[in-house]
Amino acid sequence: MKIVVIGASGVVGSAVAAELAGRGHEVVAASRRGPVAVDVADAASVEALFRTVTDVDAVVCCAANAPTADLVTASDTEFTAGLSGKLLGQVRLARTALHHLNRNGSITLTGGTFTEPLPGGSFGALVNAGLAAFVEAAAPELPRSLRLNLVAPGWVRESLAAFGWDPTNGTPAADVARVYADLVEGDAQGAVVPVTTAAGR
Amino acid sequence: MKIVVIGASGVVGSAVAAELAGRGHEVVAASRRGPVAVDVADAASVEALFRTVTDVDAVVCCAANAPTADLVTASDTEFTAGLSGKLLGQVRLARTALHHLNRNGSITLTGGTFTEPLPGGSFGALVNAGLAAFVEAAAPELPRSLRLNLVAPGWVRESLAAFGWDPTNGTPAADVARVYADLVEGDAQGAVVPVTTAAGR
Ligand SMILES: NC(=O)c1ccc[n+]([C@@H]2O[C@H](COP(=O)([O-])OP(=O)(O)OC[C@H]3O[C@@H](n4cnc5c(N)ncnc54)[C@H](OP(=O)(O)O)[C@@H]3O)[C@@H](O)[C@H]2O)c1
Ligand SMILES: NC(=O)c1ccc[n+]([C@@H]2O[C@H](COP(=O)([O-])OP(=O)(O)OC[C@H]3O[C@@H](n4cnc5c(N)ncnc54)[C@H](OP(=O)(O)O)[C@@H]3O)[C@@H](O)[C@H]2O)c1
Repeated sequence: MKIVVIGASGVVGSAVAAELAGRGHEVVAASRRGPVAVDVADAASVEALFRTVTDVDAVVCCAANAPTADLVTASDTEFTAGLSGKLLGQVRLARTALHHLNRNGSITLTGGTFTEPLPGGSFGALVNAGLAAFVEAAAPELPRSLRLNLVAPGWVRESLAAFGWDPTNGTPAADVARVYADLVEGDAQGAVVPVTTAAGR
Repeated sequence: MKIVVIGASGVVGSAVAAELAGRGHEVVAASRRGPVAVDVADAASVEALFRTVTDVDAVVCCAANAPTADLVTASDTEFTAGLSGKLLGQVRLARTALHHLNRNGSITLTGGTFTEPLPGGSFGALVNAGLAAFVEAAAPELPRSLRLNLVAPGWVRESLAAFGWDPTNGTPAADVARVYADLVEGDAQGAVVPVTTAAGR
């Protein structure tokens, strides 16, 4: 399959790109500063991606983030920082991709799972739950046998290590990547798949 | 208690205002064209509400909506019509109110429950699930013993009747209103309360 991976230079996306390439797929690595440039927060840029890169079977998005921000003290902009990219960007990506992907193709988005309440995480919780509900509700309405699924990782081991935190409760990025690749190759539709380690669950 | 009801001229809000007044509370009826004017989609307007109406114990929001829009054909603006008022407006209302409400006060927002998948309802599903997750995550972070809860109504009987649809699976607005009033008077914190009739469940 020809698969566009958005966020392919990130912790999760680079593992997903490697896993898909290892399974013999043609991977198009995209991100804002990537070999193929796209900004999921920018509608025109997403539209341009699918006009430039054609004959695509699947798109996987591991881009953008919903950073924590304090409920009481953050400005509106700080508090809703996950809105334009992670939330609306991924919704728009799905709605754009459905016009361009090959028949029987698939769209795989990224949410998240908080294994315990995270201070400042209330907008992130909104984003993750909203994406999960969107995927479940939108999947049955897709045309041309397209599929839509969501991976909802808990902490990734490499990210915890990079922050200098205890990595043992994190899931290795390679394990998370297999979940994405299985969704792309399988026939799941409207699935929301949390990925947490036994310890972090 | 002194209670601001936003959307007090609507199907749900007018029943909530009547129920609270019937229980002996002082109700301030607000909406865009209400006796007290506020637009939840406008940050400055929400801020002005709490500067004008003071000594408030509780705010209830039954305003704004997330209309259905087709996944494949709607424009971005049509598809995300519930974003600025129902989703971001209620989040901003909560974040503004927490600076102004009296100690031990409460904020009660409105989500929704789809008892069955609704064509064109995928952004509405995002909004309702996002609000529920936000309320659950934000409630424990509120200062001064403030409380935050969400009512998630299914179809309201009067609204079904107004659309000319079979009203029997809808919940009477007066029953929905009692759920809001109980949340205002009780001690629930971070609760998400679906309200559907037995038939609609
Ligand atoms: N890592 C974790 O522990 C973890 C846990 C749960 C969920 N997640 C979720 O997994 C996703 C990826 O996380 P990550 O840790 O791999 O992030 P990361 O290491 O920061 O990588 C982000 C990737 O996305 C690209 N990107 C960022 N904003 C973009 C935009 N607007 N448009 C296009 N590309 C963009 C970046 O490249 P450019 O800078 O070139 O654009 C980069 O390739 C996020 O949604 C995150 O919330 C991660
Ligand atoms: N009715 C149902 O069957 C049902 C079912 C599930 C969920 N809900 C939810 O319940 C809530 C109320 O629904 P409803 O049926 O009662 O609506 P409605 O009858 O249309 O009334 C809406 C009320 O909100 C006010 N309003 C609208 N936009 C506003 C804004 N931006 N700022 C401030 N006030 C605004 C309106 O007055 P102005 O025009 O003067 O602003 C009116 O008072 C909505 O969130 C809806 O999604 C309703």
